Amino acid sequence: MSGFGEATAVARVGDGRYEAVLDGDYGFAEALNGGYLMAVLARAAVDASPHEHPVSTATNFHRVAKPGPAQIVVDTRKQGRTAASAFVTLVQDDRPIADALITTGTLDAAAEPVYAGAAPAPVPPLEECTDFRPPTGDGFADVVDMRFDRRTMGWLDGQPSGNPEIRAWFRLRDGYPADGFALALAVDALPPVALNLGAQGWAPTVELTWHMRAVPEPGWLAVHGTGRLLADGWFDEEVEVWDGAGRLVAQSRQIARVPRTRS
Amino acid sequence: MSGFGEATAVARVGDGRYEAVLDGDYGFAEALNGGYLMAVLARAAVDASPHEHPVSTATNFHRVAKPGPAQIVVDTRKQGRTAASAFVTLVQDDRPIADALITTGTLDAAAEPVYAGAAPAPVPPLEECTDFRPPTGDGFADVVDMRFDRRTMGWLDGQPSGNPEIRAWFRLRDGYPADGFALALAVDALPPVALNLGAQGWAPTVELTWHMRAVPEPGWLAVHGTGRLLADGWFDEEVEVWDGAGRLVAQSRQIARVPRTRS
Repeated sequence: MSGFGEATAVARVGDGRYEAVLDGDYGFAEALNGGYLMAVLARAAVDASPHEHPVSTATNFHRVAKPGPAQIVVDTRKQGRTAASAFVTLVQDDRPIADALITTGTLDAAAEPVYAGAAPAPVPPLEECTDFRPPTGDGFADVVDMRFDRRTMGWLDGQPSGNPEIRAWFRLRDGYPADGFALALAVDALPPVALNLGAQGWAPTVELTWHMRAVPEPGWLAVHGTGRLLADGWFDEEVEVWDGAGRLVAQSRQIARVPRTRS
Repeated sequence: MSGFGEATAVARVGDGRYEAVLDGDYGFAEALNGGYLMAVLARAAVDASPHEHPVSTATNFHRVAKPGPAQIVVDTRKQGRTAASAFVTLVQDDRPIADALITTGTLDAAAEPVYAGAAPAPVPPLEECTDFRPPTGDGFADVVDMRFDRRTMGWLDGQPSGNPEIRAWFRLRDGYPADGFALALAVDALPPVALNLGAQGWAPTVELTWHMRAVPEPGWLAVHGTGRLLADGWFDEEVEVWDGAGRLVAQSRQIARVPRTRS
């Protein structure tokens, strides 16, 4: 089993052109994880940029990605002193799998916030959480270590809470430290919060935007997922990621299709 | 003075190619408003799609747009039964001004939410609000009618509240009804919430993602702006738009640069 660094590595093969080998461990039965794909896209965007961090990433997911070879095309749209922007596409079999607008910048690890909003309700201590593994035999739980707040996992036992919230601790099992690429994975690692609203089955993400807000400390990350509206077959999911130093290090919103709800 | 419909009109001149004339009224001293530009981009995306509504729009703003002729290029990336995705670019003087990933869909105006989160604190009645006009002589206040909650406008008198919140009522002065294109304007119409944190001057938006969540009722819209973190020269701003029927009709997040803060 390769580490996260190797699984997200990209090789530059030309001006704005990269190759990768997508790792089937970073997925569930149906598809490779969108956060994993965003980590691969971010590797290419950062490589093609003078900046260090994927500050802003907006991704459209068009098709399911498969394990194996993929190409990444980075079309630089603007390079500035504080930020650079690129249109980045993941390609398999000559078809676009995902498109992303990625803005890179260089965050100062020592920056102190001028203003920071209140943290969400804390995730319970690790020993009180559950390390749920889905029964589909996916590899995701072999590479990502997540410990879930039991109060947000009632949907597992057919008792969805009615609140679109899921909270968990997150880290990579191979010891890969929390960084901007791991954050790309963290913002899309939770089960869909709509499961707590009675949604059933797979909820394909249509669009996900996430922002890296600070350089995280090594160690466990707290991942807080919520949602505002489930209507007309669409639902939104917001994720905040907080590091061990109590700092907001990433925030995301995605909009997804929900196939069925049980009322 | 042209109406909002005319100001955002696009003319198809080829396969995925459109022309527009950007209206200087939809801006401030420094630049045309980003929401106005997103409305123009959405017109082109919807025209090129079998669907009716701009369900998801993620925009990177590269350069200041000027009043006058502009071109819009719509690169369709996927067309599906429930949604279509396109990479849409606004061009002036042969340079990309803004890039957007736009997913179109067709929302059901009669859809009832399966779940809706709590509404934010209400905007006070119109007669208790202030119709602040910036002293820069911009045309924006001539085309957009906004009434601000005075408690969120302390920054105007040099007394920022310390809370990154601004609330206002919003409508177009020409009677153009609330629709998906007006929502594009509404999500970027507030002054920067960071003004209430002591930020000074213009705060250029780097990225803004917004989602249309329901078909709004005609009439005033309530616009609620908040933020979570101001650090390292970056701040986020979240906007929710609620219609007169008490429904969440749009939600957005942007990330922007803040040039200076006064502490």
